[in-house]
Amino acid sequence: MGSSTASIASWAPSGIVTLTTDFGQRDCFVGVMKGVLLGLAPRAVVVDLTHEVAAQDVRAAAFHLRHAWSWFPEGTVHVAVVDPGVGSERQILLALQDGHAFLAPDNGLLSGVLGPRAEVRSLELARVALPEVSRTFHGRDVFAPAAARLAGGVGPGTIAARLAAEWVRLEWPGPRALAGGGFQAPVQHVDRFGNAVTALTRTELDPGCAQGWLARTRGRELPLAATYSDVQPGQALALLGSFGCWEIAVREGDAARSLGLACGEPVEFCPGPGTAGPPTERARC
Amino acid sequence: MGSSTASIASWAPSGIVTLTTDFGQRDCFVGVMKGVLLGLAPRAVVVDLTHEVAAQDVRAAAFHLRHAWSWFPEGTVHVAVVDPGVGSERQILLALQDGHAFLAPDNGLLSGVLGPRAEVRSLELARVALPEVSRTFHGRDVFAPAAARLAGGVGPGTIAARLAAEWVRLEWPGPRALAGGGFQAPVQHVDRFGNAVTALTRTELDPGCAQGWLARTRGRELPLAATYSDVQPGQALALLGSFGCWEIAVREGDAARSLGLACGEPVEFCPGPGTAGPPTERARC
Amino acid sequence: MGSSTASIASWAPSGIVTLTTDFGQRDCFVGVMKGVLLGLAPRAVVVDLTHEVAAQDVRAAAFHLRHAWSWFPEGTVHVAVVDPGVGSERQILLALQDGHAFLAPDNGLLSGVLGPRAEVRSLELARVALPEVSRTFHGRDVFAPAAARLAGGVGPGTIAARLAAEWVRLEWPGPRALAGGGFQAPVQHVDRFGNAVTALTRTELDPGCAQGWLARTRGRELPLAATYSDVQPGQALALLGSFGCWEIAVREGDAARSLGLACGEPVEFCPGPGTAGPPTERARC
Repeated sequence: MGSSTASIASWAPSGIVTLTTDFGQRDCFVGVMKGVLLGLAPRAVVVDLTHEVAAQDVRAAAFHLRHAWSWFPEGTVHVAVVDPGVGSERQILLALQDGHAFLAPDNGLLSGVLGPRAEVRSLELARVALPEVSRTFHGRDVFAPAAARLAGGVGPGTIAARLAAEWVRLEWPGPRALAGGGFQAPVQHVDRFGNAVTALTRTELDPGCAQGWLARTRGRELPLAATYSDVQPGQALALLGSFGCWEIAVREGDAARSLGLACGEPVEFCPGPGTAGPPTERARC
Repeated sequence: MGSSTASIASWAPSGIVTLTTDFGQRDCFVGVMKGVLLGLAPRAVVVDLTHEVAAQDVRAAAFHLRHAWSWFPEGTVHVAVVDPGVGSERQILLALQDGHAFLAPDNGLLSGVLGPRAEVRSLELARVALPEVSRTFHGRDVFAPAAARLAGGVGPGTIAARLAAEWVRLEWPGPRALAGGGFQAPVQHVDRFGNAVTALTRTELDPGCAQGWLARTRGRELPLAATYSDVQPGQALALLGSFGCWEIAVREGDAARSLGLACGEPVEFCPGPGTAGPPTERARC
Repeated sequence: MGSSTASIASWAPSGIVTLTTDFGQRDCFVGVMKGVLLGLAPRAVVVDLTHEVAAQDVRAAAFHLRHAWSWFPEGTVHVAVVDPGVGSERQILLALQDGHAFLAPDNGLLSGVLGPRAEVRSLELARVALPEVSRTFHGRDVFAPAAARLAGGVGPGTIAARLAAEWVRLEWPGPRALAGGGFQAPVQHVDRFGNAVTALTRTELDPGCAQGWLARTRGRELPLAATYSDVQPGQALALLGSFGCWEIAVREGDAARSLGLACGEPVEFCPGPGTAGPPTERARC
């Protein structure tokens, strides 16, 4: 734990705070969080990741945070509040990883983010919360003031204690290698464009090694391509997409709608019939 | 009016400007307002409360502003533009209360916010408006430049005159005491989660005094509870919610949809059958 | 090209960056762009124009940018990413006009913005892009870092080269004069309120000259008025709207829905039966 302590001690805030919630944008909830935050940290720069996560969908919020956090500079505080257990005894995590800080209820929301090098602590509410804490809106009463303190330079060690128990991890859907070569991976997100994002990343299948491969889903066979322009408008393809995952797309169209894809749907990525060499080896080049 | 003048004279801006409109986020209207604002007050920090108020729904905007403004630091300028009367002779209010400034058309939008200690003035368009003022977009041509001046330190007294006539107040729906004890209060908002927020606040019914009470609506009887976890997932309850009002909720569900609740629907809050003591007294503890 | 060079050399950033995309707000795409941007330009102020442009609708994005950019102070960087050709060989434009900078894929997105005095260059990716450039998300890998450089004071001339070929222009729908007097102009946008915004501007028809004129569309005749309050609630009218274009509106209603108007629908603006004088002359007063 020596290096952990060092890292917590060396917290250097950038002043940036990101917000990921299921609060939506119709209500004033997000605005109120920002009011509390700016009242305590007037120079903080607050960035919305998304507030349109479906109500109580911890896994969807975890997906976005997983794919967004590392694009921010070190010293950023990432606040994620999808919190069906608000008002219960669930703890709030304060985690540090690679110079970033994370605040989230202990319900698996950080499962996609935290690796072995993370330090995870339990927020001490008494040290950060507003004088009156509601049973329904910890985003305002606990998370916003905690984030403000971190963004303003308060050390994580002074507002969070060592964990008394393990934190909650979601099982994260990964790809699995197929016996005959290739991979099967579930769709884990459908984005705004209708792209169906699978759990297969470039770590398992580098685009440079995927020539002649095919994706199979819902009875269809689709080419793996480098970019949309490699196929005709309206044609379906698989490509390494904006989340760093292989996704099923339709050029200038909506793949999820046209192919009937939703979260959980399995997709197979395999070497095509004429592709020489042992496929799993090719996958790693 | 002595203290009024003093308060107007002592305006100390925080640099924060909040925006509440019915402009939506599909069009560039909000962005254009921010462009004008930042051109005149480059250091202003602009926070969106909501832009998703239904078109021309003054009451909904008033609801959000009522529940959001006090979470911001003193010196904040709150701009609210839901303005069916734009282009007519309606005046624009500049109000000061507790160190906050408010700008809104005189159509009742500030009804939920302003109390007896507010100073309310009439904005002098000639002192703040852009050189050319449209008949349809005062958010851009009048409100944004007025907010920029206030955020930049211009005194409210120099851009607003004494009211020539009373400002418009909406009748604000309150709870009423029931003869047999308890209260009846209408649903006044349905939030993103489907929670049906009534007009009953903790001032009338403190959660500490509500043990054994029931809420009745649409032929259903629901327990009053402290937090979602007090009932099972899928079960309905009433609790003091994020707006500081009693609301009807379904744990991990959508109460408005499952129970058929909409704005205006009456809800009764009453002591349950086995609850001892005179109910109205209990309500005040 | 002498003045061009001078203008590029005199780039003076305001620190403001606007974003116009079709990325939506459900995903973390916009947040990720801001993370990259703020990492490289920590003091930049980022303003969303809209992210709710329909997927791949270059023309709609062009419409919003056309009507928004000039309301920002000089020195603003306007980033627009609706980019069906991402990953192909299409170039990225860096344009300067009236002290503003524009970054957009070369697909016509700047057609409504750039006039004869614009300087248009081709962004040199190697000078601005992140070390690894994806084939699907240039908003993050190219546009955000380029905007950060411009907002931070890097000269446009050092990151963009002279154009090797003409840039792509969309045909922009304009009004056409009618033989019998007046104008025909297509609806080019339906806004959040259901107002149907035509391509006729005050340049062709000043409101001061439109007394007694009528708008005709979908078999209806509507009065031209100065503002909503000139007609009764629920009544349709034509007026010079918030975009600076003549639009068809319903007071406190949704004109596009009630009249069945969509983009492309032709609208005629003509002097009414009792209106004296040659109409086209009147139009110019």
